[in-house]
Amino acid sequence: MTAPTSGGPVDPALIADLAAAARILAARGVVDAFGHVSMRHPTAPERYLMSRALAPARVTPADIVEYDLNSDACNPNAPKGFLERFIHGEIYRARPDIGAVVHSHSPSVIPFGLTSRRPIQAMFHNAAFLAKGVPVFDISERFGATDMLVCDCTKGVALAETLADKDIALMRAHGSVACGPTLESAVFRAVYTEVNARIQHWSHALAGEDSLAALSPEEGALADVPNQTAGLRAWDLWREEIRAEAGW
Amino acid sequence: MTAPTSGGPVDPALIADLAAAARILAARGVVDAFGHVSMRHPTAPERYLMSRALAPARVTPADIVEYDLNSDACNPNAPKGFLERFIHGEIYRARPDIGAVVHSHSPSVIPFGLTSRRPIQAMFHNAAFLAKGVPVFDISERFGATDMLVCDCTKGVALAETLADKDIALMRAHGSVACGPTLESAVFRAVYTEVNARIQHWSHALAGEDSLAALSPEEGALADVPNQTAGLRAWDLWREEIRAEAGW
Amino acid sequence: MTAPTSGGPVDPALIADLAAAARILAARGVVDAFGHVSMRHPTAPERYLMSRALAPARVTPADIVEYDLNSDACNPNAPKGFLERFIHGEIYRARPDIGAVVHSHSPSVIPFGLTSRRPIQAMFHNAAFLAKGVPVFDISERFGATDMLVCDCTKGVALAETLADKDIALMRAHGSVACGPTLESAVFRAVYTEVNARIQHWSHALAGEDSLAALSPEEGALADVPNQTAGLRAWDLWREEIRAEAGW
Amino acid sequence: MTAPTSGGPVDPALIADLAAAARILAARGVVDAFGHVSMRHPTAPERYLMSRALAPARVTPADIVEYDLNSDACNPNAPKGFLERFIHGEIYRARPDIGAVVHSHSPSVIPFGLTSRRPIQAMFHNAAFLAKGVPVFDISERFGATDMLVCDCTKGVALAETLADKDIALMRAHGSVACGPTLESAVFRAVYTEVNARIQHWSHALAGEDSLAALSPEEGALADVPNQTAGLRAWDLWREEIRAEAGW
Repeated sequence: MTAPTSGGPVDPALIADLAAAARILAARGVVDAFGHVSMRHPTAPERYLMSRALAPARVTPADIVEYDLNSDACNPNAPKGFLERFIHGEIYRARPDIGAVVHSHSPSVIPFGLTSRRPIQAMFHNAAFLAKGVPVFDISERFGATDMLVCDCTKGVALAETLADKDIALMRAHGSVACGPTLESAVFRAVYTEVNARIQHWSHALAGEDSLAALSPEEGALADVPNQTAGLRAWDLWREEIRAEAGW
Repeated sequence: MTAPTSGGPVDPALIADLAAAARILAARGVVDAFGHVSMRHPTAPERYLMSRALAPARVTPADIVEYDLNSDACNPNAPKGFLERFIHGEIYRARPDIGAVVHSHSPSVIPFGLTSRRPIQAMFHNAAFLAKGVPVFDISERFGATDMLVCDCTKGVALAETLADKDIALMRAHGSVACGPTLESAVFRAVYTEVNARIQHWSHALAGEDSLAALSPEEGALADVPNQTAGLRAWDLWREEIRAEAGW
Repeated sequence: MTAPTSGGPVDPALIADLAAAARILAARGVVDAFGHVSMRHPTAPERYLMSRALAPARVTPADIVEYDLNSDACNPNAPKGFLERFIHGEIYRARPDIGAVVHSHSPSVIPFGLTSRRPIQAMFHNAAFLAKGVPVFDISERFGATDMLVCDCTKGVALAETLADKDIALMRAHGSVACGPTLESAVFRAVYTEVNARIQHWSHALAGEDSLAALSPEEGALADVPNQTAGLRAWDLWREEIRAEAGW
Repeated sequence: MTAPTSGGPVDPALIADLAAAARILAARGVVDAFGHVSMRHPTAPERYLMSRALAPARVTPADIVEYDLNSDACNPNAPKGFLERFIHGEIYRARPDIGAVVHSHSPSVIPFGLTSRRPIQAMFHNAAFLAKGVPVFDISERFGATDMLVCDCTKGVALAETLADKDIALMRAHGSVACGPTLESAVFRAVYTEVNARIQHWSHALAGEDSLAALSPEEGALADVPNQTAGLRAWDLWREEIRAEAGW
């Protein structure tokens, strides 16, 4: 088996942004030693970029590896990749509109995958993207008892099917995946899914059996627009923090 | 259209305090990449001062912009301002007694705007200002489905009407606004509204259906007095922390 | 009126320990900009030592002031003291066995003073001192509507009466007071009262209406003994952290 | 009485790893001033290594002491050890497959030892080791009212009997013990037991009386396998953080 061909060179500033994204997610408590972020190759849509298997807080630009959509590394000497990189490859294959993917086990979000009693909703405008609905992927429905990992293309396809046309999917007893058209938007959504989940826990505690005055789907669609523009100042802040710490 | 005239020069120490206030709010977890603080112009009550659109943790004195009460910048070359600066302009117009305004999405407070089952109350004397009552502004009541932002004078007027003669208002599925006669008091109130909300969540969890022995309105009025004097040592501490970090 | 006489010189190492105790309490989240710690004068039991009115994180040895049990400063030129120093003076007067007092508004503890539905209990051996029972002081019972502050001797006497022979008392809609024979034990108890309260909140959430298998009074009495000896390694750790940061 | 003989020299890199493990646990909030970690002697299974009685954050390689399974120090001049080192000695005696033991009072875990209403379960794959079941040791069942400490061999034996063939045991009104074949796995399990407990609290809050879609025992067994290999990147991250801070 020969390695897939590369999609061509990528602007080093983009590579540095991707490495920084991993550290941003660690700094915001979205990932701990586990979890990963990827971006689609900017000029070759059948390729994507992602760090080798490494704790997100330790990623540097030199750790970024190029994969095809089967999640095979383009460099035959590439270091070991994440076991679950198939999450990324299959979402890029299924959803041409998605440019970046974050997979995390962020702690406040996991409970929403363990019970269907109260689905995740958008508690405030920064989490407007949640108002479209958030499907839950239960790996056991199709695959029975497993190690819970999306560790091959088949399982990646199943997850991408559950995600369908949404931007976020929960993974039962595991974590979640947050997607966006750009690296900045995927990171923003991963961060605010966790923040929103924390807020929603307290909101239910306060409201008891009453429903919450969450964003309606229409409000969600409208509020998501400024998140894509004015919302970039979150990325600017977070990126600057990594630059100050890492020097790149 | 010509830019409004300036209200005149402002003591650089005050400008530095305003920039520091933004960083204080970030350091205390009241704002994250979003949220803003303003102060009325010290000698021109029809003008106010506020940073350009920027994450609060990054604000420096050079980022402060002067606005009139329509929230138009006095400098025609001013950098882009916050989309929601109209919150500030209209509150200053409606309430001559208010000298500073903080808008935030502080996470423990948002739940109280998503359910009317348990209104926010003053859990301890540092949050005495809450005992006067805290109205909730639901933008959809007058404006239907929106992007949730108070992004023009009309919406700002509606918010100021809901605030009425109180010092704090919640904004449904969005955040809150905390006001005070001085910059120090507005910052103090924004911080202790968040602290109080955290305490109130646990208090209800403990008390179940029982009511809480919160401050009565009379106790609140009495306890708010020392907060305005002895309470200043909170500002002194927080201001000193920013000075140590930022050098101004 | 003349100032009370001093109880005599105090070992500078003890003064530094007292200043460090204020910073330890701030570093552990027991106090924020408010709250205070005092110790009885080591050779003059009718005198006590406490910082001037200052945020605990900023206290240095030079800020320590000597008071008599009426809470009048022995130095007529002493800087302004805390409004609530009478908490300390009256507890020292009523309880010769107490050598140090911490007053705080630590956030997890306040809820237990706002409802009598579930009294504070000892969730683990480090908080064994709570198993003796924790009275609640409601200032309004004797004084009606006030600013909630224990700001004179009369109110201090009432609080000390509620404390009676216990080591901790809660103060309704305000905070708590933690005492011990030594500075180290009072700080230990203030820290673990807060830690215990956090644990108790989650324990009730888990147990629902069931009671908790907390320490019995007999277990509490037995477990409090090693806390006074082996427990000192907490002080050693915390004191060392302040020394590393402050240089004293 | 003569001291037991030493099991022989140990690679200094292993000693440094053990000291680092104590600091890792402190940095992750699993231990505070209290709690301890040990490892079995690599070439003498009747001996184990553990720091002297010291707050975990302060441990250095020079603080590591060798004990026999009666928890007597091999060096007659060894500094004072932990009162509860018998936890470690008796688990090593009863369970030859265990190579490292962590004892902690990690705060989110304690509630599960105070009520039997909702046993700890595996909320996500990183905590797969919990799916085998977690017994609760109540010291009062066999020993009546005590100071709660496992401070001699008899109590250590009783705890080891409760642990039986499991990897984790809770200790009522005290804390827990997490074990593994290697130092890395015991630390991993102690960390993720705490993380899992936090997630489980919120999961029950959300699900109300409904059960949780936790890992089944079969899923737990399968998911624990990659935790032992890919899971090592957590150790790599944490170990690197201590190396950067401590220089060893």
